[in-house]
Amino acid sequence: MLDHVPEKSDIIDATRRISGYVHHTPMLTSGQINHIAGCSLYFKCENFQKIGAFKARGAVNATLSLREDQRKNGIATHSSGNHAQALAYAGSIVGVKSYIVMPANAPKIKIEAVRGYGAEIIFCEPTLESRESSLQKVVEDTSAFFIHPYNNYSVIAGQATSAFEIFQVKNDLDYVITPVGGGGLLSGTLLSRNYFSPGTKVIAGEPSGADDAYRSLIEGRILPSINPDTIADGLLTSLGDKTFKIMHENIEEIIVVSDAEIIDAMKLLWERMKIIVEPSGAVPFAALLRKKENFKGKQVGIILSGGNVDLKKNYFNM
Amino acid sequence: MLDHVPEKSDIIDATRRISGYVHHTPMLTSGQINHIAGCSLYFKCENFQKIGAFKARGAVNATLSLREDQRKNGIATHSSGNHAQALAYAGSIVGVKSYIVMPANAPKIKIEAVRGYGAEIIFCEPTLESRESSLQKVVEDTSAFFIHPYNNYSVIAGQATSAFEIFQVKNDLDYVITPVGGGGLLSGTLLSRNYFSPGTKVIAGEPSGADDAYRSLIEGRILPSINPDTIADGLLTSLGDKTFKIMHENIEEIIVVSDAEIIDAMKLLWERMKIIVEPSGAVPFAALLRKKENFKGKQVGIILSGGNVDLKKNYFNM
Repeated sequence: MLDHVPEKSDIIDATRRISGYVHHTPMLTSGQINHIAGCSLYFKCENFQKIGAFKARGAVNATLSLREDQRKNGIATHSSGNHAQALAYAGSIVGVKSYIVMPANAPKIKIEAVRGYGAEIIFCEPTLESRESSLQKVVEDTSAFFIHPYNNYSVIAGQATSAFEIFQVKNDLDYVITPVGGGGLLSGTLLSRNYFSPGTKVIAGEPSGADDAYRSLIEGRILPSINPDTIADGLLTSLGDKTFKIMHENIEEIIVVSDAEIIDAMKLLWERMKIIVEPSGAVPFAALLRKKENFKGKQVGIILSGGNVDLKKNYFNM
Repeated sequence: MLDHVPEKSDIIDATRRISGYVHHTPMLTSGQINHIAGCSLYFKCENFQKIGAFKARGAVNATLSLREDQRKNGIATHSSGNHAQALAYAGSIVGVKSYIVMPANAPKIKIEAVRGYGAEIIFCEPTLESRESSLQKVVEDTSAFFIHPYNNYSVIAGQATSAFEIFQVKNDLDYVITPVGGGGLLSGTLLSRNYFSPGTKVIAGEPSGADDAYRSLIEGRILPSINPDTIADGLLTSLGDKTFKIMHENIEEIIVVSDAEIIDAMKLLWERMKIIVEPSGAVPFAALLRKKENFKGKQVGIILSGGNVDLKKNYFNM
């Protein structure tokens, strides 16, 4: 497990380590979408990733980076979202038990998906305090190794492999845009940019109902995400000290978008590209559309971070 | 324009003719779906095709096959669905006017898509009689060349290119399954199978609410589709004499599925593969799931014929 900001070689190592367990996701383009956006877009499809989101990269990299004696009692985390599935999947790969603390009100479909990988679920109250105390108890009881969803250098190195794959085939992009929640994907992307495509600017999209990263960067310190309220349910968390430091030192800009803009962007992706992208995954494209004029004629990579949606919800008729 | 059942060389010619105007669509696989289905599935993604459906293949092939003097006054058809967009697209490619007869109650989104390609739309009543008489008037007034949605050998040769692409990379499939509406895709697939992968069995899926092809094959003559009622709105039409003859001589089996089975199959594709498939496009997968035991351990190609859906409809919460 890395104890330092991932270096170039750590990201290359992570790519090798996780290959065979995660997909080298395709990069798709669409003439229709380029026409609407007024620029050339390259969509990195992490919605097609194992467990339906980029989180598989970080969880698998961190789990495979543990020594045998570190992981022999299992791995643990708290998450109601994609990291829960990702860690359960990672545990199934190495054949160790995974303990996932989830709020009791998590969607049934996510609970079943986590169980599907053979994880043990520990239910808690839907508060950060309850999550953390439940996790602490699990770790004390089982000696499982805690893998944080984003504030962990091996997780960050894993998430960095998505942008690394982009730069391997396309290293003349003007911009790459990612979403930002806890900052794992964003900080990994920033590091990959520094090492593999220094001429590319990295921008993040963030929902206005959970704009703690935007405000934190202005203040120069981590402001917590308090009562976040957005349709982009993968981006509710606060930043960590490790992700914040990397972001603070490297990022160009955060573009804040409304839920209505997220839904419009998501609808375009579903309708024109015929692919399912979750609200959080549509945030970077929404950010681009909001500041279209800034990207006119440019080449822009966009990480579609995930595709796990509740199909019973009708996002487009609300 | 072909005046005979497409031969092997006609399908190869069609593939060359349309390349550059239509996509060589990807073939996708999914471990999760294979697990559910109990066999190895190869999904040919015509939902990613130009205009969002395989219909672009036939319309472009037919239009490009016309002599200059045949198409100089434009091209015409009647369709409320994907063939309308496909022919409008084909007209835009060769730079001739397209006249599309559409029922006045066609979905606004489809009307706009057809207009987006610069076609002239002629509205009619939502009956077959009105469609045909309106079309006849258009052809008399403009001398445009009528291109039938399916009962046309050049259209059939165009639709055959999808299965040809499958067999170019995978010629040891046990089965290929397509949907059947008017029979253009199915008869093209049967011909490609005969020429390029004779060991493969071809099966069609058909909705129970529009099972005229199933009944026609039993009777040995074309029975019209009367008051069809199914969520698979691309499969409402009756067979043509050209498509029926090819089907009658070559097909293995038609599997009839209910609307509930179509929605279940569609949900699996959206949820697990993160791709948008329209109800008609999910019919072959629904057919496979209905007779799962027949396909156990087999290699099966499935043509996902299109991805044009109305996202305001909530298919999964009805």
